[in-house]
Amino acid sequence: MSKYSTFAFIGGDRRQIYVILGFAKDGYSVNVIGIDSDELLGKKNITVCNDLAQAVNNADFIVLPVPYSSILDNENINTPLSETKIKISDLFEPPILLDKKLILAGKVDERLTALSHLNGAGVVDYMKREELAVLNAIPTAEGAVKIAMEELPVTLHGSNCLCTGFGRVGKILCHTLSGLGTNVTVAVRKQSDLAYIKAYGYNGADITKPLTDPRKYDVVFNTVPKMIINGSMLRQLREDCLIIDLASKPGGVDFESAKRLGRNVIWALSLPGKTAPLTAGNIIRDTINNILNEQAR
Amino acid sequence: MSKYSTFAFIGGDRRQIYVILGFAKDGYSVNVIGIDSDELLGKKNITVCNDLAQAVNNADFIVLPVPYSSILDNENINTPLSETKIKISDLFEPPILLDKKLILAGKVDERLTALSHLNGAGVVDYMKREELAVLNAIPTAEGAVKIAMEELPVTLHGSNCLCTGFGRVGKILCHTLSGLGTNVTVAVRKQSDLAYIKAYGYNGADITKPLTDPRKYDVVFNTVPKMIINGSMLRQLREDCLIIDLASKPGGVDFESAKRLGRNVIWALSLPGKTAPLTAGNIIRDTINNILNEQAR
Amino acid sequence: MSKYSTFAFIGGDRRQIYVILGFAKDGYSVNVIGIDSDELLGKKNITVCNDLAQAVNNADFIVLPVPYSSILDNENINTPLSETKIKISDLFEPPILLDKKLILAGKVDERLTALSHLNGAGVVDYMKREELAVLNAIPTAEGAVKIAMEELPVTLHGSNCLCTGFGRVGKILCHTLSGLGTNVTVAVRKQSDLAYIKAYGYNGADITKPLTDPRKYDVVFNTVPKMIINGSMLRQLREDCLIIDLASKPGGVDFESAKRLGRNVIWALSLPGKTAPLTAGNIIRDTINNILNEQAR
Amino acid sequence: MSKYSTFAFIGGDRRQIYVILGFAKDGYSVNVIGIDSDELLGKKNITVCNDLAQAVNNADFIVLPVPYSSILDNENINTPLSETKIKISDLFEPPILLDKKLILAGKVDERLTALSHLNGAGVVDYMKREELAVLNAIPTAEGAVKIAMEELPVTLHGSNCLCTGFGRVGKILCHTLSGLGTNVTVAVRKQSDLAYIKAYGYNGADITKPLTDPRKYDVVFNTVPKMIINGSMLRQLREDCLIIDLASKPGGVDFESAKRLGRNVIWALSLPGKTAPLTAGNIIRDTINNILNEQAR
Repeated sequence: MSKYSTFAFIGGDRRQIYVILGFAKDGYSVNVIGIDSDELLGKKNITVCNDLAQAVNNADFIVLPVPYSSILDNENINTPLSETKIKISDLFEPPILLDKKLILAGKVDERLTALSHLNGAGVVDYMKREELAVLNAIPTAEGAVKIAMEELPVTLHGSNCLCTGFGRVGKILCHTLSGLGTNVTVAVRKQSDLAYIKAYGYNGADITKPLTDPRKYDVVFNTVPKMIINGSMLRQLREDCLIIDLASKPGGVDFESAKRLGRNVIWALSLPGKTAPLTAGNIIRDTINNILNEQAR
Repeated sequence: MSKYSTFAFIGGDRRQIYVILGFAKDGYSVNVIGIDSDELLGKKNITVCNDLAQAVNNADFIVLPVPYSSILDNENINTPLSETKIKISDLFEPPILLDKKLILAGKVDERLTALSHLNGAGVVDYMKREELAVLNAIPTAEGAVKIAMEELPVTLHGSNCLCTGFGRVGKILCHTLSGLGTNVTVAVRKQSDLAYIKAYGYNGADITKPLTDPRKYDVVFNTVPKMIINGSMLRQLREDCLIIDLASKPGGVDFESAKRLGRNVIWALSLPGKTAPLTAGNIIRDTINNILNEQAR
Repeated sequence: MSKYSTFAFIGGDRRQIYVILGFAKDGYSVNVIGIDSDELLGKKNITVCNDLAQAVNNADFIVLPVPYSSILDNENINTPLSETKIKISDLFEPPILLDKKLILAGKVDERLTALSHLNGAGVVDYMKREELAVLNAIPTAEGAVKIAMEELPVTLHGSNCLCTGFGRVGKILCHTLSGLGTNVTVAVRKQSDLAYIKAYGYNGADITKPLTDPRKYDVVFNTVPKMIINGSMLRQLREDCLIIDLASKPGGVDFESAKRLGRNVIWALSLPGKTAPLTAGNIIRDTINNILNEQAR
Repeated sequence: MSKYSTFAFIGGDRRQIYVILGFAKDGYSVNVIGIDSDELLGKKNITVCNDLAQAVNNADFIVLPVPYSSILDNENINTPLSETKIKISDLFEPPILLDKKLILAGKVDERLTALSHLNGAGVVDYMKREELAVLNAIPTAEGAVKIAMEELPVTLHGSNCLCTGFGRVGKILCHTLSGLGTNVTVAVRKQSDLAYIKAYGYNGADITKPLTDPRKYDVVFNTVPKMIINGSMLRQLREDCLIIDLASKPGGVDFESAKRLGRNVIWALSLPGKTAPLTAGNIIRDTINNILNEQAR
């Protein structure tokens, strides 16, 4: 990617504002549409556009948000910070020029892929990059810790916490909790995960078996997108045990049973953007940089 | 202290409820007045009293809250969770019997000492115990971290923080921040503090000299109850640097200058009771236990 | 595996003694041949045998050492702690009965597999178990740290170390070094590894590019079994930089160039058994337990 | 201290060589006598002297080693790296000029103080500086860890260790051990120390009471220069428990009883110079710098 490259940013939340400010500061020209924010006005290298063609046609890279389409209608680009609606289809019709451009977007689907290729553009889903997923686990873990601190009547220091799963979020959440002086138990299936859990100084548990001492836990963090915290487990946990579900849909908690039993369950999704939008924006920018550097090779 | 000892608790906030529940669970008889809470009703070993004499006269130890007197009028005992007012002077008049009893209170002053001794009672300030001050630094540090997580647009992980002072709160706050992956710099005066700071892996700075790179800090935590973060330092820090003052009155920040400069300053006092009332209650109970064990020797 | 199971242990080093003592303590009958050690004499549940058939024929599981065959002649079982030689072929000839038994061995090859199957026995290589490899990384890391402490004129605390590779040993070594207050840089190829490296608080470097500040390193730990620390890199490092190669054959250091340049290179192999034979024995025993529990399902 | 200052170094071990090399590299003129080492020859700013007057008379600061007098005869300056003997009394007789100079020495006694003042020189004991004592606890802790790694058949990771005392060495040793994944218990007397021990995540124990589970410990580190590990405690510990005494004379272990019971006790003194002479030298140099900077104010 050359220093003379131009980006077109269409839509997005606060994270995208930080991505834009970052690229502009790094010296790239950035056209913006679909984000109404004073923070972008009068800034060097940033052109706020009213017209899609103005934003896109002289750009090398088009950056769409996470997810790229509005969750409300699936017709428009996701522009939560703007009153303007921008139809997805408008991006693929004259006078828009996409040939040989690269579209970077979050949660790319078949429609976007097909439309991009038809118009001669490449498309990459930056949300599918492994390094982004790992780096996002940092603000996810910190956001989960913040929620626990807000909800619990005890400090995390000295408390007993159970983490189910030891993937990206599990690994980094346990590291964070352990750094705070929490007694961490991790429930997993694989012996090799138990080996790492021991190496890092946590307690291990077999997720396929009943918990040894379920009433000791002050908080349970689920990171597995499967039904793990079922009714039976909920009944074994202490009445005042806080449950934070970090798993994406369908989640890993039997929410019905939890409600019936009066358990405090928080389903915390999309934490990076909520907890630390600047960090989350930097992660997106670093990932886009990695993608463009690899393309340039 | 014998298992047959009886406590009288008069007033206090949520922490005191947890102290009461703890002593009752440990098997002691506990009389309570000046706390209206459903959590205390119908519990084994707990007698909720309407009459001061009923609460006090058969008790061995009288526990007053932190601080013991109402900050509003200085005439009544501090009873934030009750509509009932209990005059301090009533505790020292017939029909109340205090002879040979021990009064445990927070922020004991000359008045309380004099009145207690006149009535044949001993008095101990449990807030002056060093172990309570150290243990309270744990929820204070965690409360400060929670505030920073709520206010900052970045994660504490990877951020740059400055801590001024390396006393009880400074030491434990730095330990907590470092455990979260924060880059910690501590500004102090003494070479021996700088030696410990190096040993624990933080960066050290001389508090008597200007900061080397003031604009790198995302957050400053002050723990020194002296004017440390003055106007000159505020101007050197980044405009969006968050300042959290943990020092008791008069604090350590030039609040006037900060306001004029538009800096985000949060003066966070009494964090243990706010952040983690159960932990804070356990700390009070442990400290009372230590006091009574030492008296028993 | 039933509590009435019988093991036959043939050969091995100090680790195997600890495995035997552990299984005997757990209540299993253990026959031993090919290890001469006073520690095994007169112990409950342990039968020291002079005859291979006596050791093997009433056993359910036959445990061979790591590696199972002598590195000197490849004809005999590896019995470093015994004067007795036991031919591998003798294990597969009358009067030895192997039918339906399970042979557990380290570094199983085609010969052992073929001979076992011909005789109706199953065979499992416990060295190939992922959990064993991960757990062995703990004593490997600690052994590497011990060597560095012995060789360096500085403390690891505050020193700068480079680790090449972030597999099992790399991950756990970095965790150990970081816990000691070492400034850790990890050189890897993958962006996702760099993401984890950042999450855990280490510095990341691109292993495909020249080091940014090669002369700052006090010690380099290589964990990659490829030529990483080549002549060019050796020349960039400081003259007194210690190099510890933890990679199995062919290693990752250009030993020729290192010798010519007078660099201090230590090729540290098989650290678990050398550094912490009891821990290494426990790891083997836990792994055998896992294997047998899985077989029993 | 001006950049034009001249030092005279008389005697000392490897640490002193590193102090000399450091000051010379920082631009100071350094005269040396009583250390025979090729490392000092032909170096910029270093003058190796044969004559005491040549070394001392044009110097501003005279640096004697730790301890300054030979432990063998108490007549000569401590010169373990030289065949030359230099009488202490010679330093205070013509033609040596000491007027207005500053003598920096380790373990200064009344004799040295009196002789210095009689000759118009000031004298400072750099070993008495608090920051040196704290910083020296870092290599002491690391040296203790190295010994434990060499002696134990298990990894420190996952092992149980007891530390008696929580002063400078105790604090930093526990931090180091905990960083290695050791389960740390600290036995102390004061409640406030127990509070810090809890805050840092270690287990606390009352040193005045018998140990709760004495046979669980793999290693005991004593840091208190009083009889702590007495015969009764030695009998309670496991037969194979390693005992490392870090306390200066008279130590804290009943060595007689230990010998009779066949316990493995290592009395590890003066670890900084043995474990990490370069680090120990840097600590001395930093401390001398601090002393001279304070004198200059």
